[in-house]
Amino acid sequence: MSLNTFGHLFRVTTWGESHGPALGATVDGCPPGVALDADALQHWLDRRKPGQNKYTTQRQEPDAVEILSGVFEGQSTGTPIQLMIRNTDQRSKDYGDIAEKFRPGHADITYWQKYGIRDYRGGGRSSARETAARVAAGGVARAALDLLAPGVQITGYMVQMGPHGIDRARFDWDEIARNPFWVPDAQAATDWAVYLDDLRKAGNSVGAVVEVVARGVPAGLGAPIYGKLDTDLAAAMMSINAVKGVEIGEGMAAAALTGSDNADEIFMGNDGAPVYSSNHAGGILGGISTGQDIVVRFAVKPTSSILTPRRTITRTGETTEIITKGRHDPCVGIRAVPVGEAMMACVLLDHWLLHRGQVGENRGRIGGRS
Amino acid sequence: MSLNTFGHLFRVTTWGESHGPALGATVDGCPPGVALDADALQHWLDRRKPGQNKYTTQRQEPDAVEILSGVFEGQSTGTPIQLMIRNTDQRSKDYGDIAEKFRPGHADITYWQKYGIRDYRGGGRSSARETAARVAAGGVARAALDLLAPGVQITGYMVQMGPHGIDRARFDWDEIARNPFWVPDAQAATDWAVYLDDLRKAGNSVGAVVEVVARGVPAGLGAPIYGKLDTDLAAAMMSINAVKGVEIGEGMAAAALTGSDNADEIFMGNDGAPVYSSNHAGGILGGISTGQDIVVRFAVKPTSSILTPRRTITRTGETTEIITKGRHDPCVGIRAVPVGEAMMACVLLDHWLLHRGQVGENRGRIGGRS
Amino acid sequence: MSLNTFGHLFRVTTWGESHGPALGATVDGCPPGVALDADALQHWLDRRKPGQNKYTTQRQEPDAVEILSGVFEGQSTGTPIQLMIRNTDQRSKDYGDIAEKFRPGHADITYWQKYGIRDYRGGGRSSARETAARVAAGGVARAALDLLAPGVQITGYMVQMGPHGIDRARFDWDEIARNPFWVPDAQAATDWAVYLDDLRKAGNSVGAVVEVVARGVPAGLGAPIYGKLDTDLAAAMMSINAVKGVEIGEGMAAAALTGSDNADEIFMGNDGAPVYSSNHAGGILGGISTGQDIVVRFAVKPTSSILTPRRTITRTGETTEIITKGRHDPCVGIRAVPVGEAMMACVLLDHWLLHRGQVGENRGRIGGRS
Amino acid sequence: MSLNTFGHLFRVTTWGESHGPALGATVDGCPPGVALDADALQHWLDRRKPGQNKYTTQRQEPDAVEILSGVFEGQSTGTPIQLMIRNTDQRSKDYGDIAEKFRPGHADITYWQKYGIRDYRGGGRSSARETAARVAAGGVARAALDLLAPGVQITGYMVQMGPHGIDRARFDWDEIARNPFWVPDAQAATDWAVYLDDLRKAGNSVGAVVEVVARGVPAGLGAPIYGKLDTDLAAAMMSINAVKGVEIGEGMAAAALTGSDNADEIFMGNDGAPVYSSNHAGGILGGISTGQDIVVRFAVKPTSSILTPRRTITRTGETTEIITKGRHDPCVGIRAVPVGEAMMACVLLDHWLLHRGQVGENRGRIGGRS
Repeated sequence: MSLNTFGHLFRVTTWGESHGPALGATVDGCPPGVALDADALQHWLDRRKPGQNKYTTQRQEPDAVEILSGVFEGQSTGTPIQLMIRNTDQRSKDYGDIAEKFRPGHADITYWQKYGIRDYRGGGRSSARETAARVAAGGVARAALDLLAPGVQITGYMVQMGPHGIDRARFDWDEIARNPFWVPDAQAATDWAVYLDDLRKAGNSVGAVVEVVARGVPAGLGAPIYGKLDTDLAAAMMSINAVKGVEIGEGMAAAALTGSDNADEIFMGNDGAPVYSSNHAGGILGGISTGQDIVVRFAVKPTSSILTPRRTITRTGETTEIITKGRHDPCVGIRAVPVGEAMMACVLLDHWLLHRGQVGENRGRIGGRS
Repeated sequence: MSLNTFGHLFRVTTWGESHGPALGATVDGCPPGVALDADALQHWLDRRKPGQNKYTTQRQEPDAVEILSGVFEGQSTGTPIQLMIRNTDQRSKDYGDIAEKFRPGHADITYWQKYGIRDYRGGGRSSARETAARVAAGGVARAALDLLAPGVQITGYMVQMGPHGIDRARFDWDEIARNPFWVPDAQAATDWAVYLDDLRKAGNSVGAVVEVVARGVPAGLGAPIYGKLDTDLAAAMMSINAVKGVEIGEGMAAAALTGSDNADEIFMGNDGAPVYSSNHAGGILGGISTGQDIVVRFAVKPTSSILTPRRTITRTGETTEIITKGRHDPCVGIRAVPVGEAMMACVLLDHWLLHRGQVGENRGRIGGRS
Repeated sequence: MSLNTFGHLFRVTTWGESHGPALGATVDGCPPGVALDADALQHWLDRRKPGQNKYTTQRQEPDAVEILSGVFEGQSTGTPIQLMIRNTDQRSKDYGDIAEKFRPGHADITYWQKYGIRDYRGGGRSSARETAARVAAGGVARAALDLLAPGVQITGYMVQMGPHGIDRARFDWDEIARNPFWVPDAQAATDWAVYLDDLRKAGNSVGAVVEVVARGVPAGLGAPIYGKLDTDLAAAMMSINAVKGVEIGEGMAAAALTGSDNADEIFMGNDGAPVYSSNHAGGILGGISTGQDIVVRFAVKPTSSILTPRRTITRTGETTEIITKGRHDPCVGIRAVPVGEAMMACVLLDHWLLHRGQVGENRGRIGGRS
Repeated sequence: MSLNTFGHLFRVTTWGESHGPALGATVDGCPPGVALDADALQHWLDRRKPGQNKYTTQRQEPDAVEILSGVFEGQSTGTPIQLMIRNTDQRSKDYGDIAEKFRPGHADITYWQKYGIRDYRGGGRSSARETAARVAAGGVARAALDLLAPGVQITGYMVQMGPHGIDRARFDWDEIARNPFWVPDAQAATDWAVYLDDLRKAGNSVGAVVEVVARGVPAGLGAPIYGKLDTDLAAAMMSINAVKGVEIGEGMAAAALTGSDNADEIFMGNDGAPVYSSNHAGGILGGISTGQDIVVRFAVKPTSSILTPRRTITRTGETTEIITKGRHDPCVGIRAVPVGEAMMACVLLDHWLLHRGQVGENRGRIGGRS
C-alpha cells in the first residue's frame, strides 16, 4: 500500500478530486476472463449515489462509470482496467468561503500545512466523492470473486448511528435493503429516521459504525505477520475518509475477555470441515481466514461540514468563525456501507490471488479433507 | 506492506520463529549518520523481555540483539541493518501436545490449513517472540527520529486490563515506568496486580487495551488517501499478534459524536502555530498530522495458551480437549506496550522520510509561519 | 516496479489499449507546486506523434493529452495526476486477419498463451501507442525536475539504424532536432533517409539503437544494490515495447576493457568538484550518480508487423502465412527517442526524491565542498 | 524492486558488508513444502567460492550458509527464510589505503558523495561478496522450481573474456563444468588461461560477458509492460555489481536486423506445442515467455582494484595516485556465472508464482492443447 494505491496483486489506485473533470480508479492485476461491463459496476455505484433520499447529500450526480481499458468483448483481459466517473454537478461557488478558512475537524488545514497548495473546491481529494472510485473497483473485485470463489458473499450494514445501536436480537438480513440506512433492524430504521431528521434540520451531523461481513470465504487466506488478512482489512477500512477505528471480530471488546471465554472451540462438522462454538475471532486467526464469517467493523466520524458555527483561523492566521453551507451528508456513515463492502471485496480478492500465487489451490488437510 | 515487510522508505522485514536458532529484523532505508549501537537497542528490548516479574512468561532469555550489518564506527551507513536475536531458552518438549492438536483461538489451525506444514514449537512464527524483532527495529527508528525530528517523544501505556480501565483523572506520566503494567494510574496498578494474580493462578488469561501517544510530531506527515498516516498506524498495530482493534483519537467512540462536538476548534497559538480546543482527531486530519499529539489505541486479545481445558480437534480430525502447559503470559498486553511504541516509531520515521522525499522540509505557512 | 507500474516515490501506472476509447497514465507521488498544464505536456507528445513524415506510421491522431486530476490553478497539488489521451483514429478493420493468426516476433502468441484472451485490435496493450502515456508522464517528471534540479538536461537521439551507425566525429547536438531521425550526424540523416525509404517500399522494417544522455545530474542519486540507478534505468528502458538490450556507459563493450583502461581517473576541478579523465562508467559508479553525464543506450528490434509474408500458425493450430497490412513504422526506433527521454526523466526524478527522502539535501563533502 | 529488495512475490533482500560479522539474504514468499537444507544451498555457494584457483581472489572463506528460519524438518514453511554467511577471513589491514583515497572506476567516491559515510573495508556493501547472498537465495529459488516447474534447467557460462569470444561452433554443454572459466568451448578455456595469467601477473584485470540460459520454461510467464519478464531479468542482472549491459536474445544486435530476419517463424510441433524456426527473441515476446529457451547476456566490467597505478583524489580533495593491493579477481566475470544463474532462478520463480496468482495454471490453448 503506497500513497494512493492499495493491494498486493490486485492493485487499485484511485485518482481525482471532487470538482475536477473526473475521478476514477486504475485497477491492475485483475485476472483475465472475468465478465465485466459498465452496467454491472453501475449497480454498485448506484447504492452509494448521493441524493437518493433526504438523509444523504442533495448533490445530484449520475456517477456513471465508464470502462476505458482492460475489458474486451465483455471480459477482462488481464491488463489494467481504467474506471472513470465524470464530475457533472459541481457548484464551486458553494465553497468560496473555505478557500480561506479551515473547517475544524477537516483535512483543510493539514493539506495546506503539508503541501502549501490545495484544491479547496468540495474538499478536493478529501471529498467523500473519492469513495465512488473505490466502489467501482470493488465491483471489479466482486466480479472476479464470482468467478474464482463463487461462494463468497459480502454484506455491509450500519450497526450504530450516533449513540443509537441496533438490537442484535432483531437482526434480519433481508431488512438491510429495505431502509435508507442499510440497517438490519427495522425498529432502528424507524427510530433513526426521526433522530437524523432532527439533526439535519439543526444543521448538525453525526457519526456511525458500519459492519461488513463476508460469508463463504475459504480457510487459508492471509499471512502470519504484517501481510495478515486483518492487517490489510484494517488498512483498507482506515484508508476511507473519516474512519477513526477498525475492529475484527470482538474488536476492542476482546480486551475484556478471558482466554477461556475468547477461545472459539473447534469441532468437526458433518461435511468434514471444522466448525466452531463461537466466532470471537471474526473469522481470522493468526492473520489467516478460518472459514468462519469474516466480521469487520469501522467507526465513521461525523461530517465536519456543518451549519453550526465553529471557531477557526484563516490561511493568514486570523481568528474567525465558519459555517459550511453546501450539500453535505448529515450521516456520512450511511454511504460508507457500500464503500466498506467494496474494500472487503478488494482485500479478499487480493488475498485469494496471493494465496494461489504462493501456495496454489491445495491446502493442509484436516482429517480426510483439505 | 507486503507479507513480512512493513514501511515505504524505512522498511522493516522480520524473520524467525520461536524455537529456531534466531530471529530478527532486516531494516532497509535507514538514513545515514544515525548514532547506533547494540546497547542502545538493548535498552528497548529489555523493556519487553520476558521473565521480569510474575505477570509475564517465565521464559528466561536475554534477548540480546546483535547488529550484523549497516553500522560502521557507531553510525548507520544507509545500507541494510541486520538485527539478530538468538533463541537461547527453548524447551521444545513443553510443546509436544500441540504438534497434533489445534489450540482454540490460536493460529495453529489456520497455519496448517494454509500451508499444510507448520513449525508448532512455541507457535513458530506466531509466537509473541516475533515482537522482539519489532522492538529492535523500533530502536533504530527512534535513533533516527532523535537525529531528524528531535522533539518527537513516544510513550505507550496500558489503559485497560480485562474489564478494568484506568481513571484518566489520575493520569500520571511518571507513574508509567514505576509499575509492571506500564499503567499511568497508580491505583489501577495496585488493583490490577491482585486481579491478574488470581487469573494467573486459575490458569487463565485476559485481554488489554494499550494506548500509544506521540508528542512533538510536526504537522504535515502522512498522505490523503490509502497512504494516510492513520492507515499505516492501523496496519502497523493490527499487524501485531493478537491485536483485534485499532483506534485513532476518539476511535470507535467517534460514532457517537455530533459534528459540532467532534470539531476540534482552531486558534492561533502564542508562537504562531495553530492550537486546538480539543483533540478528538487524535492528531490526524485527512490522513495528515496536525501537530497535536498522535493518539493510537489497540486491543490485545487474551492468550489462547491457557491451562483451562478447551474442546478442539486433532490434525486427523478427531475430537479432543487441550490444555496448554508451557510458560505463557497471563496478559500478553503488558509486553505489547513497548511493541506498540516501536511500531509508532517506525511509522513516524517512515512518514517523515516520505514527506521529505515528496515535499522537502518546507510546508504551507499559516500567517507568517510555516 | 509491479506489473503496470514503475517507480518508487514517483510512480507511474500506464493503462489502455490501442483501440479502446483512451489510454493514459496515473502519476502518483509528484511533488506539489510543480507548474503544469496540458500544453506543456503536449509539447513532448507532439515529438512522438505518428504521421509526421513518411518514416513513421501514417496513423493520424492528435494524441491530445487531458489532465483529469492533481493539478489546480496551474500547479500540481501532490495528489495523483491522471493523464488521458483519447484514441481517435481507430481503423479496426485493418486488423481482422490477426485476430486468428499470430504474427511471428510479436506478442500475439504469448498474450494468448498467458491469458487465453487478447484484444487483438492494433496489438491492444502491446501497441506502441502505450508509449504515448509514458511520454506524457515524462513531461510531468521533466517539469518537476525543472523545479527541483534545474540543471538537468535530457536528450535522446539515434546512434544506429539497421547496420548503419553514426560517426561520433560528426556529433552535433544541434543537428538532432533538424532531421526526422533525431540523429546528431547530418550525413547519417541523409544516408538513413535513402536506406529507410527503400526498406519501407520493400514492406520490411529495421531495428535501431537509441542513446539518452542526462547532463547536469547531481552526484549521489541511486543506491548500492538492486535499487541502483542503473538497475532502474535498465528496467525502465527494457520495459519499453520492442527493446532487447540496455547499456550504461561502455555497456557490452566494457567486457573488452582492462581495468587500467576502464578506470576513469579522478581530478579536482576548478570549482572544487571532481572531474574525470573519461566516462566509461556512463555517469554511474556502484549504482550511484557521479555527476558526469549519464549515458544509456537501448536497442529496439524491428517491427514485426510487415508486408513480407512469414510462416505462422492460427489459434486453432493450423499452419498458415501472414502479412500484416495496416499503418506501421518501418523503424519504430525513431519514435522511441522521446520515449527513452521520458523514461530517463521519470527515473531521475524518482531517485532525486528517494535521495532527498533518505539522505536529505546534504551530501558527503570532498575537500571543502559538498 | 526497492533499494535492497528484488522480486514481487518471491522477494529477496540482501544485507551485509564485506568485513562486518556476516552477510545474508532474507527470502520472503517462498512456497511451503519445498525441500531445503543448508547442504543443498552450499552446493551452489561452493561454485562461486573464492580461492578455488589462481584466476579468482585468493581470499579463503568457506562461505558456509546457515538457515536461521523458515525451514522446519527439511521443508520450507512459507515464512521468511533467513540465510546467513559469516565473514571469516577479513584482513582489514589490506584496505587501509582506500579509507582516504577513491579508487577510479569504483563505488568509493559515490558512496561517499551520497551518504557522507562509508564502510571502506573491502568495499563494504559494494564488495563482490554481496553476491554470495544472491547465490544462496537462488538456491532456494531453484529448489522451489524443482518442485513447481521441474523441467526448468538454468545454466550460465562465459562467452567472452576481454576481447576473446567463444566459437559457437564448438559449443559443448558438458565442457562448462570442466574448466575454471565455465566456458562451453574447450579451446577458449585453454587460450583464456594463458591470457588471464599474463594479465594477472601484470597487475591488471579484464571484463567479461556471461550468458545464462533457462530451458524448459513454460510459455506464459511475465506481463506485457513494466512487469515484463525481460524487464525483471534486465533489472536483476544490472543489479549485480559491475554489470554494465544486459541483452535478451539478439540483444543490441537486434538493431541491425530487418523485420523479416528477426521474425521467428512459428510451426506446430509434433506434440502439439508451437515450435519456432529460430530464437532471435530469446524466449520472450511482449514481456512473456514463449516456451523457447530464455537467453540473457550481461557484460561485467573489469575490477577497479588493480595494481596498476591510477590517478585519483583523496577525501580532502588532494591529487594523488592509488594502487590497490589486497586479493582481487583478475576477471570478476568468472564468479559472476553462478550469480547470473541465481538471479535467473529468482526471477523465474517469482514470475511463476505471479502467473499462478493472477491466472492460475490454465493457459490459452492453441489447437487442442493448452
